[in-house]
Amino acid sequence: MLPRLFARTVEVSAHCDLPCGVYDPAQAKIEAESVKAIIGKMKDNSDPEFIARAVLIKEQRSELVKHHLWVLWTDYFKPPHFEKYPQLHTLFNEATKLAGAAGTKGSSDAGKADELLAKIDEIADIFWETKKAA
Amino acid sequence: MLPRLFARTVEVSAHCDLPCGVYDPAQAKIEAESVKAIIGKMKDNSDPEFIARAVLIKEQRSELVKHHLWVLWTDYFKPPHFEKYPQLHTLFNEATKLAGAAGTKGSSDAGKADELLAKIDEIADIFWETKKAA
Amino acid sequence: MLPRLFARTVEVSAHCDLPCGVYDPAQAKIEAESVKAIIGKMKDNSDPEFIARAVLIKEQRSELVKHHLWVLWTDYFKPPHFEKYPQLHTLFNEATKLAGAAGTKGSSDAGKADELLAKIDEIADIFWETKKAA
Amino acid sequence: MLPRLFARTVEVSAHCDLPCGVYDPAQAKIEAESVKAIIGKMKDNSDPEFIARAVLIKEQRSELVKHHLWVLWTDYFKPPHFEKYPQLHTLFNEATKLAGAAGTKGSSDAGKADELLAKIDEIADIFWETKKAA
Amino acid sequence: MLPRLFARTVEVSAHCDLPCGVYDPAQAKIEAESVKAIIGKMKDNSDPEFIARAVLIKEQRSELVKHHLWVLWTDYFKPPHFEKYPQLHTLFNEATKLAGAAGTKGSSDAGKADELLAKIDEIADIFWETKKAA
Amino acid sequence: MLPRLFARTVEVSAHCDLPCGVYDPAQAKIEAESVKAIIGKMKDNSDPEFIARAVLIKEQRSELVKHHLWVLWTDYFKPPHFEKYPQLHTLFNEATKLAGAAGTKGSSDAGKADELLAKIDEIADIFWETKKAA
Ligand code: NI
Ligand code: NI
Ligand code: NI
Ligand code: NI
Ligand code: NI
Ligand code: NI
Repeated sequence: MLPRLFARTVEVSAHCDLPCGVYDPAQAKIEAESVKAIIGKMKDNSDPEFIARAVLIKEQRSELVKHHLWVLWTDYFKPPHFEKYPQLHTLFNEATKLAGAAGTKGSSDAGKADELLAKIDEIADIFWETKKAA
Repeated sequence: MLPRLFARTVEVSAHCDLPCGVYDPAQAKIEAESVKAIIGKMKDNSDPEFIARAVLIKEQRSELVKHHLWVLWTDYFKPPHFEKYPQLHTLFNEATKLAGAAGTKGSSDAGKADELLAKIDEIADIFWETKKAA
Repeated sequence: MLPRLFARTVEVSAHCDLPCGVYDPAQAKIEAESVKAIIGKMKDNSDPEFIARAVLIKEQRSELVKHHLWVLWTDYFKPPHFEKYPQLHTLFNEATKLAGAAGTKGSSDAGKADELLAKIDEIADIFWETKKAA
Repeated sequence: MLPRLFARTVEVSAHCDLPCGVYDPAQAKIEAESVKAIIGKMKDNSDPEFIARAVLIKEQRSELVKHHLWVLWTDYFKPPHFEKYPQLHTLFNEATKLAGAAGTKGSSDAGKADELLAKIDEIADIFWETKKAA
Repeated sequence: MLPRLFARTVEVSAHCDLPCGVYDPAQAKIEAESVKAIIGKMKDNSDPEFIARAVLIKEQRSELVKHHLWVLWTDYFKPPHFEKYPQLHTLFNEATKLAGAAGTKGSSDAGKADELLAKIDEIADIFWETKKAA
Repeated sequence: MLPRLFARTVEVSAHCDLPCGVYDPAQAKIEAESVKAIIGKMKDNSDPEFIARAVLIKEQRSELVKHHLWVLWTDYFKPPHFEKYPQLHTLFNEATKLAGAAGTKGSSDAGKADELLAKIDEIADIFWETKKAA
């Protein structure tokens, strides 16, 4: 938990398409953590109204994961990055699929959320490498 | 920059109203950083079309700041928190006003963005204190 | 019903963050009445598809209640109001919580909708007092 | 102002497509009042950033007017209403056009906002007549 | 009808309220086809989580149908069209109702989707006739 | 390509993430045509309020182009497609960039809209080839 205590005192990063130049994979990760937590709560509560709400919110949060990832892929990463990291296209395509119908939208399997989080971490590693190199 | 490098390997937090139990003031801060960067770019470019886009995007990002803060105020913080931190209500009210018409929506003064960021940091400090105490 | 017949011929009020200066607690109340009506219909119809739709729409309408209230709290009310009505912060915080996961989003208990409507009425009373005083 | 004081203590009405059965032309009117107020403020402030914001918000509020009217036209009014009030289709079509590109979206002429408000009042009169008759 | 056959290689049409002048009933039809396909999949899968997702997405797609149709009715069609095609108002009102609570939102009856598609085709025929005549 | 010629009378295609299985590049193209038309109108009208509206609407329509393309890239195309068409990733990345800050969002150069339309046509050709092959 310690690093997190530091984290809040340093620069955080964001996206928009001005572009403002501020990006941060944490946006996708935060939503993916939410998806994972929702799936956890679905195991403990089978009330049909709760399930309907959970499915709805899981859908929205998964869509946000996709959106934040698409933004990084299109807006942050440039041709030289794709050249240096030839796996990037596939990584983003797989990650967004993992947040979609075949992943955390269409299932409530915690394993899907874990796979999604792992892909986002892979993307984040590359992201921060390119930031250091810039 | 170092702490940030750690940050991406630890838990991040989010919000939704299931509730998933995941919250993180970083969401508000990321958008506020974006607002600040937009204001910076507005100083360097007086093209009317650029200004119109910047105003539009600054509006959206400021609205997101307000939304993320409102969510923390209503959904994360509970009566015992408001008792322990009697300044919390005013802090949130002032922070959301700073992201509104009298703040980063209605002006392109970098000072407003700095005041907003400072308020978000104050909120984040309290937030992480309550998380540690939990 | 008579007062309503008059109501449609007088000024109504709204919100936006220009600000246009037009606010009206009726916006929150209308959505809360909708929430109450939805809960009423959920009692009479246990079809799973209907329940899923009702939960979805109740979620959206409750979110609108929260949004309209947040706007009043941040954009309409000013420091002198909070000084004159020290209960305002708590009132808004409780009202928005009543429209959230612990209230009309997370339950289909008509009592929650009634509590929410009562809080909105309390807010509306203060709102119109401040308008008369202005 | 007096009738308004009564108005807040009676039933207000809304829309959604469950349907909840709650509708109220006040929703369209509130947004149209906002549009009118925005146009008023545009006369007093020619700062390009203010104009860009005002245009943006006027666009959003006008869109909300259109949306609220469309909902009444499609969801509230039924064939017998259209038979009894043969002018209804044209009234709604003209009102939504008045909130569009040829009306309050595309111009900042206060006269357009007044025409729009007058049409909404005509619709509201019919609406409340049908409610009384129901 | 012929011009539409070349549609893929010629101008396609859209909506927006600048107006850009580009409209195309295909936007409503595409969403209605989606609704029909969703209803088809609901027959083959009774898993409660799947049903909740399907209901949610059917709701969104039906809402998009309504929106695209409302845009054509208000923004594209002009008084001379309504004079030449006196059935247009009723056609649009019935089509948007078929995408609403009494139609593809409130039911998962494939027949409702077929009725909706037929109405959209009727509208499209008139639309392309008016384009040819322009 | 032939099947497309009959598109108006046969199945049209869309997107959603149930998935419904209905996709159509026309959705992206329609929005891109709108962007091009907006740029055309910006040449003929230098009124600041018109420019602000045009910039706003061009932003929204460009965002829709990006969204529709992202959906095709993530939801429709599968690993075997990326194997058969190794240029697909780059094509989508370039197309979405052309709808972004360095393209039709950030400029009002008609050439950018033409480049965007050409990329969408390239994508559409591949899309319809894969549909025929399926
Ligand atoms: Ni940005
Ligand atoms: Ni959450
Ligand atoms: Ni306002
Ligand atoms: Ni309703
Ligand atoms: Ni258009
Ligand atoms: Ni689909």
